[in-house]
Amino acid sequence: MKLLCIIFIVQCTIFLASIVGKSSLQPPPFMQKVAMARYVVHQTNWSVISTISKPFDGIPFGNVESFSDGPIGNSSGIPYFYLSPFDFALKDIVQHPQVTATMTLSQTGYCFSKHYDPEDPRCARVTVMGNLVKVTKAKELQFSQHALFSRHPAMKSWPKGHHFAIYKINITAVVALDFFGGADIIPAATYFAAKP
Amino acid sequence: MKLLCIIFIVQCTIFLASIVGKSSLQPPPFMQKVAMARYVVHQTNWSVISTISKPFDGIPFGNVESFSDGPIGNSSGIPYFYLSPFDFALKDIVQHPQVTATMTLSQTGYCFSKHYDPEDPRCARVTVMGNLVKVTKAKELQFSQHALFSRHPAMKSWPKGHHFAIYKINITAVVALDFFGGADIIPAATYFAAKP
Repeated sequence: MKLLCIIFIVQCTIFLASIVGKSSLQPPPFMQKVAMARYVVHQTNWSVISTISKPFDGIPFGNVESFSDGPIGNSSGIPYFYLSPFDFALKDIVQHPQVTATMTLSQTGYCFSKHYDPEDPRCARVTVMGNLVKVTKAKELQFSQHALFSRHPAMKSWPKGHHFAIYKINITAVVALDFFGGADIIPAATYFAAKP
Repeated sequence: MKLLCIIFIVQCTIFLASIVGKSSLQPPPFMQKVAMARYVVHQTNWSVISTISKPFDGIPFGNVESFSDGPIGNSSGIPYFYLSPFDFALKDIVQHPQVTATMTLSQTGYCFSKHYDPEDPRCARVTVMGNLVKVTKAKELQFSQHALFSRHPAMKSWPKGHHFAIYKINITAVVALDFFGGADIIPAATYFAAKP
């Protein structure tokens, strides 16, 4: 029964990934670390944003936030968020706009299917750095709203009174780990030039 | 096929949870927020540790780390980690030992099975605050090593040359969100008094 369940979970995860994410759960080979970084950002749909906390006296604080870098198959590489002013993260960025957002393939079925512990370097993870800023330009608002609402349909009905708005990370660099030998720092231009 | 897969994933996740986690995937009711916080910490086995980064000039940085608060069914509430000096987090705590570790039920099958978006307040998440310190006392070393190795069997074979050691968060408070109305700050004594 256990083995049957594991096989089914892997099969179903691959199938579901084909309809909710990209066409396949198969990430790029580890040598293509920049493509891998783009892949992780496109495959996942929530992250932990780390901020310098205002209410908690300047400690580094982790906030769980949904995001999308684009509709399925149309990755921009930019994590877009739908945030309310009630959110800790928005209170924090008033003084310290620089944040990181962290994603890992542990969030998908991949590491589980490969028997990789979440801390195993082959279980690829990415930390995106930059300022968290409000999206204001009309064209980007249109793209980012579709990016978010297509992958988080519930957002459409979130309460108007909470004044949700779209934010993004203005990426300066990305730290990626997907194999033994330590993490790489990827400049923003290199990151955006890659295909996920 | 899609529906069949979703049903199987939920069924198999519940079955697997019964053998790898607690006896059931069913969390406590949302009114029991402290028990929920303990539940989230015991059910999950990796987190994002947020630190004040040393190599990245003081920005808040998110690191993916495996952890365990105890063997299955024996939760201490304390997140124990197995960290190498090569890890960003250990480099960072030399100057700033205060960290947070963030976990969410998005990491289990629960939010998916309830159709909760990861940012939905009912998709319970917890941020644990405190100093990240090395475990040194013999009895706690014994408990924490069993806690980690029983839930992360791969750790036993991680390379000796990386000088992995056991660390824990000395919890001062926990922030928990599991329903509409905002997050609660739970003092450490209240958190430890609850049953997960």
